[in-house]
Amino acid sequence: MKIYFAGSIRGGREDAAKYKELIDYLKKYGEVLSEHFGSEKLTSYGEAYSDEFIHDRDMNWVLSSNAIIAEVTTPSLGVGYELGRALENNKPMLCLYEQKEGKRLSAMISGSKKIKTVNYKNLDEAKQAIDEFFKNQDLKTKKD
Amino acid sequence: MKIYFAGSIRGGREDAAKYKELIDYLKKYGEVLSEHFGSEKLTSYGEAYSDEFIHDRDMNWVLSSNAIIAEVTTPSLGVGYELGRALENNKPMLCLYEQKEGKRLSAMISGSKKIKTVNYKNLDEAKQAIDEFFKNQDLKTKKD
Repeated sequence: MKIYFAGSIRGGREDAAKYKELIDYLKKYGEVLSEHFGSEKLTSYGEAYSDEFIHDRDMNWVLSSNAIIAEVTTPSLGVGYELGRALENNKPMLCLYEQKEGKRLSAMISGSKKIKTVNYKNLDEAKQAIDEFFKNQDLKTKKD
Repeated sequence: MKIYFAGSIRGGREDAAKYKELIDYLKKYGEVLSEHFGSEKLTSYGEAYSDEFIHDRDMNWVLSSNAIIAEVTTPSLGVGYELGRALENNKPMLCLYEQKEGKRLSAMISGSKKIKTVNYKNLDEAKQAIDEFFKNQDLKTKKD
């Protein structure tokens, strides 16, 4: 199982510690291709590669993955772009959103029938949503 | 010519006045399907419709448009999602980004070969980029 984890980088690193904990948890289900997105060394400046290199590497990861898990609390153009392209390529997707006072998740994510979105209050709930997601993926694979 | 203008709504309305001016300018090239995204009455709470209604309406607009113009200064999941889906559907796209101190545009947008991105310093430069974009669209249409 290859998993692509999506989280905000240049959009802001406020949730980086959560990304790391979710990535570590996802490892029980497979290889997380974008593991370094959880690194505290990665700032909102982004990586020291060209934008084209980053785009092509990340899109290769998205398209070669079996599932996409996105943490969508911090708005991010890159995460939205990846979800849009992943949807067109029929990838199973789970979006995790932490509800905050005065903020709302984009209707393009929460209103998309092909994206499973879960609102969570703490990381334990987010991990439960991950367990549930992979249990269903497993059932689907067995049925196919 | 049907034009879809994309800008941040729930991601934050800091740039709403710019969206309005760009939408008004775009009208010289065609019908702007998402004209109300520039309204000052539209707050980051979003519209009073269900998320599914908004998603399906906006995606219908994206898919029925001849060109997508996105203002991408404020990070937005919805704008990213629309650009990702528009790319997979071969829509001509122009992204307009106002460079700000300490901020960088997502590498998934600036590094995408199929998205034309222009950095602008003021709205006159953004309008020039729009003129240039439609001049090239016109040439492409005549060649086809």
